[in-house]
This record gives sequence, C-alpha cells and structure tokens, in this order.
Amino acid sequence: MANEAGQPPALDNLSLADKAPSSKATAQVITPFDVSGGVDESGKLLPVDYEKLTREFGATPITPDLLERFERVTGHRPHRFMRRGIVFSHRDLTKILDLHEKGKEFYLYTGRGPSSDSMHVGHTVPFEFTKWLQDVFDVPLVIMLTDDEKYMHSQKIKDVEDAKNFAKSNVKDIIAVGFDMKKTFIFSDFEFVGGAFYENICRMAKRITINQVRGTFGFNDSNNIGEFHFCATQSATAFATSFPHIFGTDKKKVSSIPCLIPCAIDQDPYFRQCREHAEKMKYKKPSLIHSIFLPALQGPGSKMSASVDSSAIFMSDTPKQIKTKINKFAFSGGKETAEEHRELGGDTKADVPFQYLTFFLEDDEELERIRVAYEKGEMLTGEMKQRCIAELQEYVKGFQERHAQVTPEVVAKFMSQRPLEWNGNPNPVVAEKK
Amino acid sequence: MANEAGQPPALDNLSLADKAPSSKATAQVITPFDVSGGVDESGKLLPVDYEKLTREFGATPITPDLLERFERVTGHRPHRFMRRGIVFSHRDLTKILDLHEKGKEFYLYTGRGPSSDSMHVGHTVPFEFTKWLQDVFDVPLVIMLTDDEKYMHSQKIKDVEDAKNFAKSNVKDIIAVGFDMKKTFIFSDFEFVGGAFYENICRMAKRITINQVRGTFGFNDSNNIGEFHFCATQSATAFATSFPHIFGTDKKKVSSIPCLIPCAIDQDPYFRQCREHAEKMKYKKPSLIHSIFLPALQGPGSKMSASVDSSAIFMSDTPKQIKTKINKFAFSGGKETAEEHRELGGDTKADVPFQYLTFFLEDDEELERIRVAYEKGEMLTGEMKQRCIAELQEYVKGFQERHAQVTPEVVAKFMSQRPLEWNGNPNPVVAEKK
Repeated sequence: MANEAGQPPALDNLSLADKAPSSKATAQVITPFDVSGGVDESGKLLPVDYEKLTREFGATPITPDLLERFERVTGHRPHRFMRRGIVFSHRDLTKILDLHEKGKEFYLYTGRGPSSDSMHVGHTVPFEFTKWLQDVFDVPLVIMLTDDEKYMHSQKIKDVEDAKNFAKSNVKDIIAVGFDMKKTFIFSDFEFVGGAFYENICRMAKRITINQVRGTFGFNDSNNIGEFHFCATQSATAFATSFPHIFGTDKKKVSSIPCLIPCAIDQDPYFRQCREHAEKMKYKKPSLIHSIFLPALQGPGSKMSASVDSSAIFMSDTPKQIKTKINKFAFSGGKETAEEHRELGGDTKADVPFQYLTFFLEDDEELERIRVAYEKGEMLTGEMKQRCIAELQEYVKGFQERHAQVTPEVVAKFMSQRPLEWNGNPNPVVAEKK
Repeated sequence: MANEAGQPPALDNLSLADKAPSSKATAQVITPFDVSGGVDESGKLLPVDYEKLTREFGATPITPDLLERFERVTGHRPHRFMRRGIVFSHRDLTKILDLHEKGKEFYLYTGRGPSSDSMHVGHTVPFEFTKWLQDVFDVPLVIMLTDDEKYMHSQKIKDVEDAKNFAKSNVKDIIAVGFDMKKTFIFSDFEFVGGAFYENICRMAKRITINQVRGTFGFNDSNNIGEFHFCATQSATAFATSFPHIFGTDKKKVSSIPCLIPCAIDQDPYFRQCREHAEKMKYKKPSLIHSIFLPALQGPGSKMSASVDSSAIFMSDTPKQIKTKINKFAFSGGKETAEEHRELGGDTKADVPFQYLTFFLEDDEELERIRVAYEKGEMLTGEMKQRCIAELQEYVKGFQERHAQVTPEVVAKFMSQRPLEWNGNPNPVVAEKK
C-alpha cells in the first residue's frame, strides 16, 4: 500500500502545485502515489470528485438498494460510513453478500504502508470499517504491512531495518483499533514473503507487463524494478492460497475462497489488475469496498501531511492538543461574524468540524440536528468546534486505552503464522491436522 | 539463470535466423536470453567471438601470468579449462587470490535455470569447474536453481509446480557432479526466497531502474514485471548476508565476505549490474570467472537444443547412444576422403570430436599428440571420433554412477538450510551458537 489506507494523502504525494505552473488548472489524479482533486486556474487545490472517480475507475456506487440488501443479509444496520457515503463504491460486494447468505467462506484483506509517523484519525477510517466488517461477517482477516514497498519507493527510508521498525510500530496502532486476535493475521512483507505467498507473487508477476504498470501507476522508466514488481505482491495477498496456515492446503478448495478488500479508493488500481488476471490463475476475483479520504484540518483540497503536525489529529494527541488544533486550524464553514452567521447560517459542506462529525458521530439524528441548526445559524462555529472536539477526544481516548494494552507479546501473537478461528468453528488447518 | 550455466544455448534462444531475413548478416548477440555469434550474408550462423565479447563486456582475459599466480597462490595446477582457454575471462579474480593468500573468507556461487531436460555435457562444464574450485579453495558453495525465473520467463511452463519439479530433478544431476555435501547449499528460489535473502533482493531492486534492465537484457515493455525484477534475485545471491545459516548474523563481518561466481559468459550481464551497486549497499563486489559454451555436435555456430536429441550428448545417454551420436552427428574437420586427409591433414579448430577432447581429456601431452597427428593427416577422422567416444563414455559413466547414489534423502540434505563446514573448522554459525 503506497499510501496508507484511508489516510489523508501525504505531503510528498500531493505536491501538484510544484509540478504544474500555478497559473494553469490541472485535472484530478488518483493513483496509489498521487492523490489530488486537481488545481483550479488560480492554483487552488480542489477537493477530490469521488463520483467522477467511480465512473473513471469503473467501480459501482453503493446505492440505497444495496445498503438495504446488506442489512437484510447480515442482520446489521450498515455502518455509519456506509450510510453517509464515506464508504461510497464497490466492486462485486454483491458476490460477497451471496456467499455470506449461503454460509460460504471468504476473508477480509486490508493493509498499510508503514511510515515513521503515528497514525492520525484519517488512517483509522478503513481500519475501523474493516474491524466492523469482521464483527459483522465473522471471517478471517489478513492485514498486510508493505514495508518492502515503502523501502523501495521512498527516498527517505535508506535502510531495510528502518522500514521493518516502522512496520512493527505501526502494528501496535493497528491492533489498537480493536481487531479480534483469534481471527486476525497481521504480517509485514519482509517477514512473510516466501513459500506459498511468493508462489502467488510469481504467478501474478508473470501476467503483468511493464506497459500495464506504467499506465496504471504513472511510473516511468526511471522507477525501479521493485516498484514495478510490487503490484504483484499487493495482489498475491488477495488469494487465500497465500495463507496455508489459515486456510489449509487443499488447493482446489482454497483456490475458491475469495476476499473482500476494504480500502481507500487510491488503492483500487492494484486490485483492478489483480481482478483482471485472477480467473486465468484459477482464483476468484477479489471484491472491493472503497472509502473516501478524511479531509485535512485545512479543508478538502488542502494539502495534508502526516509530518505537518497542524494538518491532522494524531491518535497520540492529548485532549488539549486536539482542542487546540480544532480551535486553531480546523477550517470553518461559519460566517465572518456571529451576527452574520445567525442571519445567514453556516456551510456544513465546507465545515471541517462538521465533516469530522459525519465520520465519527454515531447518532444519525443528532448529526442531522447539528446540520440543520448550523445551516440555520442557530448553532455557532464555536459550538460546532466544541462538539467535534468532544467526539474526537472520546474517539482518541478509546484508542489510546487499547493502545496501552498492546504489549510486544500481543504484537508477536498477531504476527505469528498460526491457525485462526472464526465462525465458532475451529479453522480448516486445525481440522486437517485431526 | 536464464540459460543454464555453461549450456550450449537452447533452440528457442537461438532462433536468430527466424528473426533476421536470411539474406542479411546480423551481429553477435550475447545476453542471458539470446546467445549467438550472429549470421553471415548467406544466413549461416557464426561461432561466438569470445575475444570480442570480453572487450565489449569490459571483462579481463585470463593471461598466462594470472594462471601462474593462481598456481603459486593455490598450490594447484590450473584446471584444464583454464589452461585451454575454456575458462577464458574474469572480473577481479585477483582479489579472490589476494583473500585466499591471506587466509580470508569468500564463497562460491553458481546456478542453473531448471528445465525439463536432463543435463547434457555442456551443462556440466561450469559445474565441473566449480567443484574443482571448491576442492582447491575449500570454501562454502551456494548453488541457486532459478525455478521462479524459469516459470515467469517461459511460455511453456504453465504451472509453478512444474518449475519446482524440474528444479528437484535437476538438483540430482548437479549433485552427481560430485559436490561436497558438507560445504554445499543448493536451493530453489521458490523454496528459499524470504527473510534475509528477500531483504537483499529488495535492496538490489531499489537500485535498478527499468531503463537499466531494458538495456542490459534486451527486454521491452511487453516483458513481465517478474522478468525485470528477477535480476535483483540473481544478484542477491552474491551477498553473504543472504545466507545467515551459513555465515551467521554478524552484519558487519558477513557484509565483507565476497563471492566468486564461476559461470558461462552469458550470465555476466546480471553480475555487471550487481557489481555496479554492491558497494553502495556496503557489500563487496562479486568476482567472476567466465567459461565459453561447449560447441553443439553440429559444430560451433550451429543451433543446439536440449530438446533436440541429436544435437547433444546427454548425461543420461548410454555408451551406445554416445557412440552413435558422435559417429553420426559430430561435425568433422577431416577431409572428404582418407587419401586427401592423409595428404592435407584435418582441421582441429572445426573438428567437434577434437573440441570435445579439449574439454574432457585431462592429459595435455596426449591432447597435443592428437592435435599434431590429426593436422598432419596421420590420424584419421574415425580414430579421432573413437578417442572422443571413449573419453565421453568414461565421463558420462562416472556421472551416472554418482547419480545412482543420489537418493531423495541426499537431495533433501543438500537443500536444507543448515550450517556448513569448511576449511577444517566448524562454521561461524556453529561458533556463534557456542
């Protein structure tokens, strides 16, 4: 994963303004290495147009009908991310629902490109959603830390050991989201590449030409062979046969187990390629479910960077830091003066604190009350910020409490190649051994 | 190893005549995927010009002075391959001699691209030489079976399992050359890629651009990402840190252990790239020692194929098959009639049976007697063939006797990741554990 799943894009991926003369408008670009809604004539960064992206990528929007079916099949009300268009498009989610309906097997796959920075709230979005899907479906989950790719792609990471250490530290953050150890395998590529996984990497690599990668990822001939090759690695994780310790070694049976990949939309290009070749490899195409990015504090379209402290709420921030950042940096959709605001109302679409509430406030009715009150001018900017601060403080506190419980032993357990247990049954590896 | 080390090039790598209009001459091309001396105006394949190749590759010819130093330093008379220009050029062999002189560590590395065909005499040339070097230097040896590359490059190999099976079967042939189990580790990439080896693969991959591979290997944008990426894998074996089970984990110490790579000249492009980047990775550049190809039965410049039975002597051939093939197919440098031959003498440079004797007859004086007698016309073609048949029958018989002893247990032992022992001492892994 070149960009951390669901993260607000990092500074070095977003320096479009440096690439294009500021007097000229540029189009929207979304690859795993470049995420931008483009630049207007004045050089201002534009928000990502997700609807246009869905069309261009050839993905399918998540419709009210699909949400209804999801609820019917799973018995769970769709997650607030789904209800609010934060998880907004998919590929073959319906096939996963078909399988779940029939009690057939599948698994979940997500990941993160490990970096030195601790996670911010944006990073947690697809992980939160993945945890919820795991609870709803009761299936195994694999989480891939692409330390190999980070090392090969980044000019800043000089040493393999650094990338491995970032992975180890990022695993603690991921575990703190609340995954169920019994059904979750977390791995770093540097530790796990080999064996059945490596075989699938080669199977995929044989089918992807240099031409295809160049087109899909925007690479050129000065990119290194590791960067080109990595898309085979990210794809190979989408095949259950890469995990004999979880699914066993009955090749025919395991080949028929598909996965569902919850990820931020920028990761879609990897899996388009994976889906193109999967059936030729006698595997199932992975299904996908895409999320949008959490806007930066400075608002949608502004540059956000994990290394610029004022641009994001970090999962390691204190309650006071959260308060200060929201009050000081969060872009407001309110009017210049309280009087004007009371008269004309605020703009919730531009208001970052309100946007954050759409991500993190569970209660739909309360969210709607806040929206109406703000747009009518009954609720002032200060109140909106306070509400957002309280919600984020609560969210981050829960995370930090879980984080404190993540000992090196817990990390080692999540990362050990072991049988998993799900659906109330011992897993097939255990069953095979009997 | 795209072409088996030291093999007479396979048919599908040599179909230059199909690529170029037969009316036009083409230049010599040597890459791991294309080995040809070129085609003359009439469409006839020309023998490889090894002197020109040494110049073009920027390698160093092996001189009488170097041979003298080799003998002085090792206390061994240079191998007949070295005395006769079959092992003809090198890179930094002198550095290896320096180390040996000082009693310092290095190791040997060679390999083979596994194929369905059993080895022919040409395949054994670099292995024979490597075995001899191992005996002379008393150092560890790693032998890499590039089943991953064969699978990704070959249109014929549809399945990973097939490539793995070829590797397993080829290992038996390699062991039958006579390697010392205590100091030899044989591995297949599908089994061994991972861990410290994979880290070195990524370190190398980060440094090689698409541009560099295209130039060096003659690939284009329709080649797959696995083919491009593989040159990092072949290079990573040249670093002792890839083998913690042999050299231990003292990073600083192990990083300073170089290797000597005996290989056929077509493999040189991989290691030119490896040498270019090694020092930036804080490793030592590998040294190389290059051999020429054994000519096909039909003579130098003719197409030879492991899948065309009449073009080669196989290590599985019976004495009778050897006799028939030499008598029937081996190109002769003799004259049309016995009378003419007696009068004008034969041409040893064109005579395949004599060429084979230069590879396999140990006695220099006898070889010289044969040469003189044939060129003077005192020795007839039939006699030359008989001498060659006897020598090859003996060579193949020894191989087959050793081959019969190679049980699955022996294969498993050679391929297990274990400490090795050399130079009369327990190895550093054992020492570290104490």
